[in-house]
Amino acid sequence: MGDPSKKPRMEDDGLVFPPNPYLKKQEKDVLYHLGLATDKDDLPALFGDVKFVCMGGSPTRMKRFAEFIGKRLGLVQKNGSGPKDLCSTDRYSMYKVGSVLSVSHGMGMPSISILLHELIKLMHHAACTDVIFTRMGTCGGLGLAPGTVVITDSAVNEMFQPVYQMIVLGKQVNRPTKLSREVAEEIRAAYEPGAKYDVVIGNTMCTSDFYEGQARIDGAICDHTLEDKIEYLKAAYDAGVRNIEMEGTCLAAMCHKSGIKGAVVCVTLLDRLLGDQVNMTPEEHDEWEQRPQELMAKFISKRLKL
Amino acid sequence: MGDPSKKPRMEDDGLVFPPNPYLKKQEKDVLYHLGLATDKDDLPALFGDVKFVCMGGSPTRMKRFAEFIGKRLGLVQKNGSGPKDLCSTDRYSMYKVGSVLSVSHGMGMPSISILLHELIKLMHHAACTDVIFTRMGTCGGLGLAPGTVVITDSAVNEMFQPVYQMIVLGKQVNRPTKLSREVAEEIRAAYEPGAKYDVVIGNTMCTSDFYEGQARIDGAICDHTLEDKIEYLKAAYDAGVRNIEMEGTCLAAMCHKSGIKGAVVCVTLLDRLLGDQVNMTPEEHDEWEQRPQELMAKFISKRLKL
Repeated sequence: MGDPSKKPRMEDDGLVFPPNPYLKKQEKDVLYHLGLATDKDDLPALFGDVKFVCMGGSPTRMKRFAEFIGKRLGLVQKNGSGPKDLCSTDRYSMYKVGSVLSVSHGMGMPSISILLHELIKLMHHAACTDVIFTRMGTCGGLGLAPGTVVITDSAVNEMFQPVYQMIVLGKQVNRPTKLSREVAEEIRAAYEPGAKYDVVIGNTMCTSDFYEGQARIDGAICDHTLEDKIEYLKAAYDAGVRNIEMEGTCLAAMCHKSGIKGAVVCVTLLDRLLGDQVNMTPEEHDEWEQRPQELMAKFISKRLKL
Repeated sequence: MGDPSKKPRMEDDGLVFPPNPYLKKQEKDVLYHLGLATDKDDLPALFGDVKFVCMGGSPTRMKRFAEFIGKRLGLVQKNGSGPKDLCSTDRYSMYKVGSVLSVSHGMGMPSISILLHELIKLMHHAACTDVIFTRMGTCGGLGLAPGTVVITDSAVNEMFQPVYQMIVLGKQVNRPTKLSREVAEEIRAAYEPGAKYDVVIGNTMCTSDFYEGQARIDGAICDHTLEDKIEYLKAAYDAGVRNIEMEGTCLAAMCHKSGIKGAVVCVTLLDRLLGDQVNMTPEEHDEWEQRPQELMAKFISKRLKL
């Protein structure tokens, strides 16, 4: 089952070692939501060369990214059949193009958390080395023109703290959210001045609810006032928050805990200081959501020295 | 825009009134993740006759349910083209068959929370009356044979409290989780003794993480011990918990707050007192996940007096 834990671990071997002592004792491992298992799939042969795990919420967008990065890396499949979904379930979609894995994570921390548990174990079972996990998402911005790309400096919770809060065995656990500054800087360096949009580095607030949790007043339920909302969003801005999304702290904490370099790159679809409704044209939406993908493609090409 | 709030409200008119005073002031409402909007879609014409909103995590399963309930209600489309996905985004899938809406909600409370905000507003804009929201899911069981169906009595959090915890404006908000006992009893009454499986009514624990949050020791990260896990799951059992899933408290709290009757019906895929890995055969999985759908179909047929 391609168990890299049997190999003597060296300081810089770059392998992924999930921080769970029980994994070694398991005879086999079913990655249930991916539809893969160590006893039926040859994970090192299928995934051993993966270096870039690129995630995003929408399955359609991640399929498009697989096609896009394939063209950029000169790895377009000759038969024109397009990339194949490697998830045998419908929980996520996963495409592999060379050393790039393009995976949809759904919406919210519980959804990306399941995926990250299984992807980290997948990288371990496949004996991948020097893997980078990134999320390319859409988000609400604060004080930025819609269409701006935000590379996350610090991923913070709803109290503006760099912490991922979860409940384990009925007790609250706080884990630090640390992303790779080196990777963030490299992604920023891939931006070419003169592009139609700006790229900024800022703090990203992660919430568990899109409407009330992000202080919106246009959900089905709203117990707060417009004034409360403005006050809260301004306080977020003053704390360095430049965008708001729903997965960042979970990704940052789980990558950090597992020794994997992580980065979050999102495009803003609206300025939350000006409104709540997401209301751009379909053309704008398509163009904007391409921007994090373009940056990521340049970053990957540079890393691969293409 | 089919605004039922302009109609004088009567005690028992059965309309849906989202508890948000700001909605009345909106000129139009974009249901962004559903891809619907009050200015471009005739929501009363499209959805006005909906009575049963049936949700489940997986888009494939909800498409199958639409086909299944269509046959049961004698509403199979003559041209054989199958039900059409009414979501113009890929965030959710939504099918309408007569008065039944079959919708996928993804995984976790943040994902179902976005859907519920937009579905509650949709029911309001479409002037639907006497709507029931149900979730038909898969789950882990406690002390039950895999394949058992659990109808939720009380939806509880990880501390076994009947509360949905969320953070609004940086502060914790606790909302009561109240499901409809009447609907739960009616669904149980739809069970025919002699069926190949049992149906029980019990408490359902809802968590924000599938692995650590449900005390599993087979995730990528595990800081607790096997003994901790057993102790926690036994405490859950003693508190009346019979199954564990990831959306129940959110659905219960949001329905209760909006005056909508809600119910949760899940099939157990394993007994968590005996293990963590989800490892049934594909045939068992297909048969088991059909069971909540069968019960729901009987419940709906009875309600419609078919």
